[in-house]
Amino acid sequence: METWKSVTARFGGGFQCRYEPSPMPWLRSVSKSSEATIVHLTMYGQPWREAIEEIPSDKPAIVVVGGTKVPSETFHISHFNVSVGNQPHSEVAALAVFLESWIGPVPNSSKFAGGQIEVVPSPRGKVVINHEEE
Amino acid sequence: METWKSVTARFGGGFQCRYEPSPMPWLRSVSKSSEATIVHLTMYGQPWREAIEEIPSDKPAIVVVGGTKVPSETFHISHFNVSVGNQPHSEVAALAVFLESWIGPVPNSSKFAGGQIEVVPSPRGKVVINHEEE
Repeated sequence: METWKSVTARFGGGFQCRYEPSPMPWLRSVSKSSEATIVHLTMYGQPWREAIEEIPSDKPAIVVVGGTKVPSETFHISHFNVSVGNQPHSEVAALAVFLESWIGPVPNSSKFAGGQIEVVPSPRGKVVINHEEE
Repeated sequence: METWKSVTARFGGGFQCRYEPSPMPWLRSVSKSSEATIVHLTMYGQPWREAIEEIPSDKPAIVVVGGTKVPSETFHISHFNVSVGNQPHSEVAALAVFLESWIGPVPNSSKFAGGQIEVVPSPRGKVVINHEEE
Protein backbone atom coordinates (compact mmCIF):
# COMPACT_ATOMS: atom_id res chain seq x y z
CA MET A 1 0.00 0.00 0.00
CA GLU A 2 3.03 2.29 0.53
CA THR A 3 4.15 1.57 -3.05
CA TRP A 4 0.62 2.32 -4.26
CA LYS A 5 0.68 5.75 -2.55
CA SER A 6 4.17 6.55 -3.80
CA VAL A 7 3.34 5.66 -7.44
CA THR A 8 0.10 7.71 -7.26
CA ALA A 9 2.02 10.73 -5.92
CA ARG A 10 4.66 10.49 -8.64
CA PHE A 11 2.48 9.61 -11.64
CA GLY A 12 -0.90 11.08 -10.62
CA GLY A 13 -4.43 9.73 -10.50
CA GLY A 14 -7.05 9.42 -7.77
CA PHE A 15 -6.38 5.88 -6.61
CA GLN A 16 -7.27 4.67 -3.16
CA CYS A 17 -6.62 1.36 -1.49
CA ARG A 18 -7.42 -0.25 1.83
CA TYR A 19 -7.12 -3.64 3.45
CA GLU A 20 -10.45 -5.38 4.14
CA PRO A 21 -9.98 -7.81 7.04
CA SER A 22 -13.33 -9.61 6.47
CA PRO A 23 -13.96 -9.73 2.73
CA MET A 24 -16.67 -12.41 2.74
CA PRO A 25 -19.18 -10.68 5.12
CA TRP A 26 -18.60 -7.47 3.15
CA LEU A 27 -19.24 -9.25 -0.18
CA ARG A 28 -22.37 -10.98 1.21
CA SER A 29 -23.81 -7.66 2.28
CA VAL A 30 -23.09 -6.04 -1.10
CA SER A 31 -24.52 -9.09 -2.87
CA LYS A 32 -27.87 -8.64 -1.08
CA SER A 33 -28.08 -4.87 -1.38
CA SER A 34 -27.10 -4.73 -5.07
CA GLU A 35 -25.48 -1.33 -4.45
CA ALA A 36 -22.57 -2.57 -6.57
CA THR A 37 -22.06 -5.35 -9.09
CA ILE A 38 -19.81 -8.19 -7.94
CA VAL A 39 -17.78 -9.58 -10.83
CA HIS A 40 -15.76 -12.67 -9.98
CA LEU A 41 -12.99 -13.36 -12.51
CA THR A 42 -12.50 -17.11 -12.78
CA MET A 43 -11.46 -19.41 -15.61
CA TYR A 44 -14.68 -21.37 -14.89
CA GLY A 45 -16.98 -18.43 -15.67
CA GLN A 46 -18.93 -17.31 -18.73
CA PRO A 47 -16.87 -15.71 -21.56
CA TRP A 48 -16.04 -12.08 -20.86
CA ARG A 49 -17.14 -10.63 -24.18
CA GLU A 50 -20.59 -12.11 -23.53
CA ALA A 51 -20.74 -11.07 -19.85
CA ILE A 52 -19.61 -7.49 -20.43
CA GLU A 53 -22.79 -6.72 -22.39
CA GLU A 54 -24.84 -7.51 -19.26
CA ILE A 55 -22.79 -5.75 -16.54
CA PRO A 56 -24.47 -2.46 -15.54
CA SER A 57 -22.34 0.60 -16.28
CA ASP A 58 -24.36 2.93 -14.02
CA LYS A 59 -23.11 1.60 -10.66
CA PRO A 60 -19.78 0.62 -9.11
CA ALA A 61 -18.29 -2.83 -9.68
CA ILE A 62 -16.30 -5.01 -7.29
CA VAL A 63 -13.95 -7.30 -9.18
CA VAL A 64 -12.90 -10.40 -7.23
CA VAL A 65 -9.71 -12.22 -8.23
CA GLY A 66 -7.58 -14.80 -6.47
CA GLY A 67 -8.01 -18.18 -8.20
CA THR A 68 -7.95 -21.19 -5.91
CA LYS A 69 -7.67 -18.93 -2.83
CA VAL A 70 -11.21 -17.58 -3.41
CA PRO A 71 -13.84 -19.40 -1.24
CA SER A 72 -16.34 -21.38 -3.35
CA GLU A 73 -19.20 -19.32 -1.89
CA THR A 74 -17.97 -16.50 -4.15
CA PHE A 75 -19.37 -18.34 -7.18
CA HIS A 76 -22.84 -18.00 -5.65
CA ILE A 77 -22.84 -14.50 -4.16
CA SER A 78 -21.21 -12.86 -7.21
CA HIS A 79 -23.54 -11.30 -9.75
CA PHE A 80 -21.26 -12.48 -12.55
CA ASN A 81 -18.66 -15.23 -12.79
CA VAL A 82 -16.58 -14.16 -15.75
CA SER A 83 -13.75 -15.94 -17.56
CA VAL A 84 -11.03 -14.36 -19.65
CA GLY A 85 -10.22 -17.64 -21.36
CA ASN A 86 -10.87 -21.05 -19.81
CA GLN A 87 -7.27 -22.01 -19.26
CA PRO A 88 -5.04 -21.07 -16.32
CA HIS A 89 -3.66 -17.56 -16.59
CA SER A 90 -2.40 -14.63 -14.54
CA GLU A 91 -5.09 -12.98 -12.39
CA VAL A 92 -3.48 -9.63 -13.16
CA ALA A 93 -3.68 -10.35 -16.89
CA ALA A 94 -7.38 -11.29 -16.56
CA LEU A 95 -8.09 -8.10 -14.60
CA ALA A 96 -6.31 -5.99 -17.24
CA VAL A 97 -8.10 -7.55 -20.22
CA PHE A 98 -11.45 -7.41 -18.41
CA LEU A 99 -11.11 -3.73 -17.46
CA GLU A 100 -9.81 -2.80 -20.92
CA SER A 101 -12.79 -4.52 -22.54
CA TRP A 102 -15.38 -3.27 -20.07
CA ILE A 103 -14.24 0.36 -19.74
CA GLY A 104 -12.79 0.74 -23.25
CA PRO A 105 -10.36 3.42 -24.47
CA VAL A 106 -9.53 6.16 -21.96
CA PRO A 107 -9.65 9.57 -23.68
CA ASN A 108 -6.50 11.71 -23.41
CA SER A 109 -8.40 14.38 -21.53
CA SER A 110 -9.11 12.06 -18.60
CA LYS A 111 -5.59 10.73 -18.08
CA PHE A 112 -4.43 10.71 -14.46
CA ALA A 113 -3.69 14.25 -13.34
CA GLY A 114 -1.68 15.66 -10.47
CA GLY A 115 1.50 13.63 -10.80
CA GLN A 116 5.02 14.95 -10.32
CA ILE A 117 6.13 13.08 -13.43
CA GLU A 118 4.43 12.78 -16.81
CA VAL A 119 5.54 10.36 -19.51
CA VAL A 120 5.16 11.54 -23.10
CA PRO A 121 4.54 8.66 -25.55
CA SER A 122 7.50 8.24 -27.90
CA PRO A 123 8.57 5.64 -30.48
CA ARG A 124 12.24 5.86 -29.25
CA GLY A 125 13.75 6.49 -25.82
CA LYS A 126 12.26 8.03 -22.70
CA VAL A 127 10.54 11.42 -22.81
CA VAL A 128 9.47 12.62 -19.37
CA ILE A 129 8.08 15.93 -18.11
CA ASN A 130 9.05 16.64 -14.50
CA HIS A 131 6.33 18.91 -13.08
CA GLU A 132 8.27 19.37 -9.85
CA GLU A 133 11.05 21.26 -11.62
CA GLU A 134 8.69 23.65 -13.44
CA MET B 1 9.50 -23.96 -16.52
CA GLU B 2 8.33 -27.14 -14.75
CA THR B 3 5.04 -25.39 -13.88
CA TRP B 4 4.70 -24.32 -17.53
CA LYS B 5 5.06 -27.94 -18.71
CA SER B 6 2.67 -29.25 -16.07
CA VAL B 7 -0.05 -26.69 -16.92
CA THR B 8 0.34 -27.41 -20.66
CA ALA B 9 -0.04 -31.16 -20.05
CA ARG B 10 -3.15 -30.68 -17.93
CA PHE B 11 -4.90 -27.94 -19.92
CA GLY B 12 -3.52 -28.48 -23.44
CA GLY B 13 -1.92 -26.22 -26.01
CA GLY B 14 1.39 -26.20 -27.88
CA PHE B 15 3.42 -23.93 -25.62
CA GLN B 16 7.18 -24.08 -25.46
CA CYS B 17 9.60 -22.23 -23.26
CA ARG B 18 13.35 -22.01 -22.88
CA TYR B 19 15.88 -19.96 -20.97
CA GLU B 20 18.03 -17.65 -23.12
CA PRO B 21 21.32 -17.00 -21.29
CA SER B 22 22.38 -14.13 -23.61
CA PRO B 23 19.23 -12.22 -24.58
CA MET B 24 20.94 -9.05 -25.88
CA PRO B 25 23.20 -10.70 -28.55
CA TRP B 26 20.17 -12.74 -29.65
CA LEU B 27 17.98 -9.61 -29.89
CA ARG B 28 20.70 -7.70 -31.79
CA SER B 29 20.97 -10.46 -34.35
CA VAL B 30 17.18 -10.63 -34.81
CA SER B 31 17.04 -6.83 -35.04
CA LYS B 32 19.46 -6.84 -38.01
CA SER B 33 17.98 -9.83 -39.82
CA SER B 34 14.34 -8.70 -39.48
CA GLU B 35 13.29 -12.34 -39.38
CA ALA B 36 10.96 -11.40 -36.52
CA THR B 37 9.49 -8.15 -35.22
CA ILE B 38 10.83 -7.02 -31.86
CA VAL B 39 8.13 -5.31 -29.81
CA HIS B 40 9.35 -3.74 -26.57
CA LEU B 41 6.52 -3.03 -24.12
CA THR B 42 7.40 0.08 -22.11
CA MET B 43 5.36 2.86 -20.58
CA TYR B 44 7.59 5.29 -22.54
CA GLY B 45 6.56 3.94 -25.96
CA GLN B 46 3.98 4.94 -28.57
CA PRO B 47 0.33 4.11 -27.77
CA TRP B 48 -0.49 0.45 -28.48
CA ARG B 49 -3.66 1.03 -30.50
CA GLU B 50 -1.59 3.15 -32.89
CA ALA B 51 1.40 0.76 -32.99
CA ILE B 52 -0.67 -2.37 -33.57
CA GLU B 53 -1.75 -1.13 -37.00
CA GLU B 54 1.90 -1.10 -38.10
CA ILE B 55 3.15 -4.41 -36.65
CA PRO B 56 3.43 -7.03 -39.43
CA SER B 57 1.12 -10.01 -38.92
CA ASP B 58 2.95 -12.25 -41.43
CA LYS B 59 6.04 -12.97 -39.30
CA PRO B 60 6.81 -13.93 -35.71
CA ALA B 61 7.02 -11.30 -32.98
CA ILE B 62 9.32 -11.15 -29.98
CA VAL B 63 7.73 -9.22 -27.14
CA VAL B 64 10.23 -7.79 -24.64
CA VAL B 65 9.04 -6.91 -21.12
CA GLY B 66 10.87 -6.20 -17.89
CA GLY B 67 10.57 -2.49 -17.09
CA THR B 68 13.63 -0.97 -15.43
CA LYS B 69 15.55 -4.26 -15.75
CA VAL B 70 15.59 -3.95 -19.58
CA PRO B 71 18.91 -2.45 -20.88
CA SER B 72 18.40 0.96 -22.55
CA GLU B 73 19.84 -0.43 -25.80
CA THR B 74 16.51 -2.26 -26.19
CA PHE B 75 14.82 1.06 -27.05
CA HIS B 76 17.08 1.29 -30.12
CA ILE B 77 17.22 -2.29 -31.41
CA SER B 78 13.47 -2.93 -31.04
CA HIS B 79 11.34 -2.37 -34.12
CA PHE B 80 8.58 -0.95 -31.92
CA ASN B 81 8.53 0.58 -28.45
CA VAL B 82 4.92 0.23 -27.41
CA SER B 83 3.08 1.54 -24.35
CA VAL B 84 -0.10 0.18 -22.86
CA GLY B 85 -0.78 3.39 -20.99
CA ASN B 86 1.95 5.82 -19.92
CA GLN B 87 1.73 5.19 -16.20
CA PRO B 88 3.41 2.40 -14.23
CA HIS B 89 1.60 -0.92 -14.52
CA SER B 90 2.08 -4.66 -14.36
CA GLU B 91 4.22 -6.06 -17.20
CA VAL B 92 1.95 -9.10 -17.28
CA ALA B 93 -1.11 -6.84 -17.63
CA ALA B 94 0.57 -4.95 -20.49
CA LEU B 95 1.45 -8.21 -22.24
CA ALA B 96 -2.14 -9.47 -21.87
CA VAL B 97 -3.76 -6.28 -23.19
CA PHE B 98 -1.22 -6.04 -26.04
CA LEU B 99 -1.72 -9.66 -27.16
CA GLU B 100 -5.50 -9.42 -26.83
CA SER B 101 -5.50 -6.27 -28.99
CA TRP B 102 -2.97 -7.50 -31.54
CA ILE B 103 -4.22 -11.08 -31.99
CA GLY B 104 -7.91 -10.41 -31.31
CA PRO B 105 -10.59 -12.95 -30.43
CA VAL B 106 -9.51 -16.60 -30.54
CA PRO B 107 -12.17 -18.71 -32.31
CA ASN B 108 -13.56 -21.68 -30.35
CA SER B 109 -12.23 -24.10 -32.96
CA SER B 110 -8.62 -23.16 -32.24
CA LYS B 111 -8.72 -23.43 -28.45
CA PHE B 112 -5.81 -25.35 -26.93
CA ALA B 113 -6.22 -29.05 -27.62
CA GLY B 114 -4.69 -32.12 -26.04
CA GLY B 115 -5.24 -31.34 -22.37
CA GLN B 116 -6.26 -33.83 -19.69
CA ILE B 117 -8.73 -31.31 -18.31
CA GLU B 118 -11.16 -29.05 -20.16
CA VAL B 119 -13.09 -26.24 -18.48
CA VAL B 120 -16.60 -25.59 -19.78
CA PRO B 121 -17.65 -21.92 -19.43
CA SER B 122 -20.47 -21.56 -16.90
CA PRO B 123 -22.21 -18.65 -15.16
CA ARG B 124 -22.24 -20.62 -11.83
CA GLY B 125 -19.78 -23.06 -10.30
CA LYS B 126 -17.09 -25.20 -11.89
CA VAL B 127 -17.83 -27.42 -14.88
CA VAL B 128 -14.85 -29.52 -15.90
CA ILE B 129 -14.44 -32.39 -18.37
CA ASN B 130 -11.74 -34.82 -17.35
CA HIS B 131 -10.45 -36.42 -20.56
CA GLU B 132 -8.25 -38.83 -18.59
CA GLU B 133 -11.28 -40.63 -17.14
CA GLU B 134 -13.03 -41.09 -20.50
